[in-house]
Amino acid sequence: MTQTHKTQPPVLKTQVAIIGGGPSGMLLSLLLSKEGIDNVVLERSSRDHVLARIRAGVLEWGSVELLRRAGVGARMDRDGHVHNGTRVAWQGEHTMLIDSKKWTGKSFMAYGQSYVTEDLYAAVSEIETPVLHDVSDVQLHELTGASHVTFVQDGVAQRLDCDFIAGCDGFHGVSRQAIPASVQKNYEKVYPFGWLGVLSETPPLPDLWYVQHERGFALASQRSAMLSRYYVQCPITDRVEDWSDERFWNELIARFPPEIGSAIITGPSIEKSIAPLRSFVTEPMRYGALFLCGDAAHIVPPTGAKGLNLALSDVYYLWRGLTQHYQQGSDTLLDRYSEVALDRVWKTERFSWWMTSLLHVFPEQSSFDHRTQAAELNSILASEHAQAWLAEQYAGFPVEDWG
Amino acid sequence: MTQTHKTQPPVLKTQVAIIGGGPSGMLLSLLLSKEGIDNVVLERSSRDHVLARIRAGVLEWGSVELLRRAGVGARMDRDGHVHNGTRVAWQGEHTMLIDSKKWTGKSFMAYGQSYVTEDLYAAVSEIETPVLHDVSDVQLHELTGASHVTFVQDGVAQRLDCDFIAGCDGFHGVSRQAIPASVQKNYEKVYPFGWLGVLSETPPLPDLWYVQHERGFALASQRSAMLSRYYVQCPITDRVEDWSDERFWNELIARFPPEIGSAIITGPSIEKSIAPLRSFVTEPMRYGALFLCGDAAHIVPPTGAKGLNLALSDVYYLWRGLTQHYQQGSDTLLDRYSEVALDRVWKTERFSWWMTSLLHVFPEQSSFDHRTQAAELNSILASEHAQAWLAEQYAGFPVEDWG
Repeated sequence: MTQTHKTQPPVLKTQVAIIGGGPSGMLLSLLLSKEGIDNVVLERSSRDHVLARIRAGVLEWGSVELLRRAGVGARMDRDGHVHNGTRVAWQGEHTMLIDSKKWTGKSFMAYGQSYVTEDLYAAVSEIETPVLHDVSDVQLHELTGASHVTFVQDGVAQRLDCDFIAGCDGFHGVSRQAIPASVQKNYEKVYPFGWLGVLSETPPLPDLWYVQHERGFALASQRSAMLSRYYVQCPITDRVEDWSDERFWNELIARFPPEIGSAIITGPSIEKSIAPLRSFVTEPMRYGALFLCGDAAHIVPPTGAKGLNLALSDVYYLWRGLTQHYQQGSDTLLDRYSEVALDRVWKTERFSWWMTSLLHVFPEQSSFDHRTQAAELNSILASEHAQAWLAEQYAGFPVEDWG
Repeated sequence: MTQTHKTQPPVLKTQVAIIGGGPSGMLLSLLLSKEGIDNVVLERSSRDHVLARIRAGVLEWGSVELLRRAGVGARMDRDGHVHNGTRVAWQGEHTMLIDSKKWTGKSFMAYGQSYVTEDLYAAVSEIETPVLHDVSDVQLHELTGASHVTFVQDGVAQRLDCDFIAGCDGFHGVSRQAIPASVQKNYEKVYPFGWLGVLSETPPLPDLWYVQHERGFALASQRSAMLSRYYVQCPITDRVEDWSDERFWNELIARFPPEIGSAIITGPSIEKSIAPLRSFVTEPMRYGALFLCGDAAHIVPPTGAKGLNLALSDVYYLWRGLTQHYQQGSDTLLDRYSEVALDRVWKTERFSWWMTSLLHVFPEQSSFDHRTQAAELNSILASEHAQAWLAEQYAGFPVEDWG
């Protein structure tokens, strides 16, 4: 970042302006900096606020390798929990193992998104890439011309000139809104329920469990040896105050087959929140100098844990495209960014919608729908091909060999 | 069938009363007669009417083997067209082969249901099993006691005493209605569109084609070398008169990728009809002496061609159960009939619903739903596991080794 003091506001210059300091923006910053590409991160929240966010916790193996490649794999490899698949239970009695390692050769890493973000902040801070926090009134300008970003920090209006803008600022961010409505097409599905999540300092079950039950969906996941994350499907109108710890644990355990549920170790919750479920895609993911990454362009319901992984594959594609631009003077990758990213996005959206449909109780569901849901799980149990397909999608769609 | 003339009405006696002279009832009659089990078929329509019905035309290999075992395979093996899979086209451009032979070792037989029925009538007639046509006012009595059937034929009220009743009289038949509502649970889904079917004396495409298109679903199938059967999804409110041959062919061809559609040979229709699509299951499939088979107990939408095949596997289970009863004096199979048949029914219902959902345009479908439908087809194209699972289900769920 260079600064020139001709007039007010001061004009900053960089090659890539990154809007949003979550894991997508920070990973992109780190990867670009390692290639010698100048970049600035603008984040409207404080660093502490960003690091306190509790999010997903399951990394596809492609995400693991990308984080290692960016040089932030050490703590993940030390503290993360490698698992080779996930278990599914239904109707309070049936169970199966979806063995990703067996069917795809790929494992997963259970490692909280907040740790990923911490690791990225530590690495970016070490190489002194500017990350501007608490910026407000971020605006994107002239995306098809002399593109630049204006914002306010510490009460001072600033302008950042740049070649490219990476919109990594999430679903509610300004980047997507900067694309003219006339060229944008949005696709959306809102689910008629939420996920009540609880974090507790208790030893997790040894496996991940996805649970279908007539009382609703449940999920058991792990953050570390003494940190568990559990979820139950709940009405979207519920408030956290409606759910005492006791009510939560009773409901969670009631959705598991008894022999699994009885092994859940309960304890005081240290975090409890209700999240809505949404599917969303915007097309295209590129407009002029602006490239959208992650939640800014697409949201998946959390079933299947694809949100962070999909953001990281976007970052991978964009990093390779920008590197090709600066190092080889070619834009063939950038020009295909939207198309290639969206192919993986739509397949992943389909999978996340399907996992959600398969495992949740829908208020409008008929008794026929409920029985076909059980029949689908029974059909998967009866077919190695079906289990392999589920495993393959859960392991993550291939990232196109790129750049 | 024995007849005693004590009083009016005359009392007939048999071991198994079969209600309905469609393919299920006639196959059951033939199989039972070959085991020396006395049976009578009651059919409310004339023989000519039954034989004129146009229905499905794709037999799973298990159905082929059962028909051969019943001694009615000769014409099927001579005139039927063996195929090893089916082709799928979507969005007017993509195609794939679902190769059942490759993934399951099983082929199919394209052979019209009306031919199957003819073959069965010829065989039953040869062994002189009584098939009573044009019977009316069929009523089932005392299903948990001295079970018997009353009916009227040629204006004469008759009574048929029996050990068991096989309800093979279809969705609108009396058998299912004879089960008290208190023990019956029905599951139903009605689809918001119909299938317009055309039969034409033209050479069919060399393959079966299932077609997804934004204009709606289409299907190309074959009855013989010079007889083709095509379908297009249409509004359920349409009437046959709304569809001239020209309109039908234009619409059909518009839904195929151009290189496939242009190969369709058109000609005058010799039959044209609109059928609704429905999913339906009743549970249990047995009540006392009454056993439901086929459409009397369950309906699938025609996508995937499972209706006749599912009826034939019910017949297989019931035949083996009744044979065990009469030949070994044991009811272990009959007692499991409903449970075992329903397992295959629900898996098949799930598959038929899924094939229907995957390939049709639904009026309530959002643009998100439309894109995930395409993404699902793209995901299947990209995965051999997915293709194998589809092939496996299309080839037919295994029939439990039984009796």
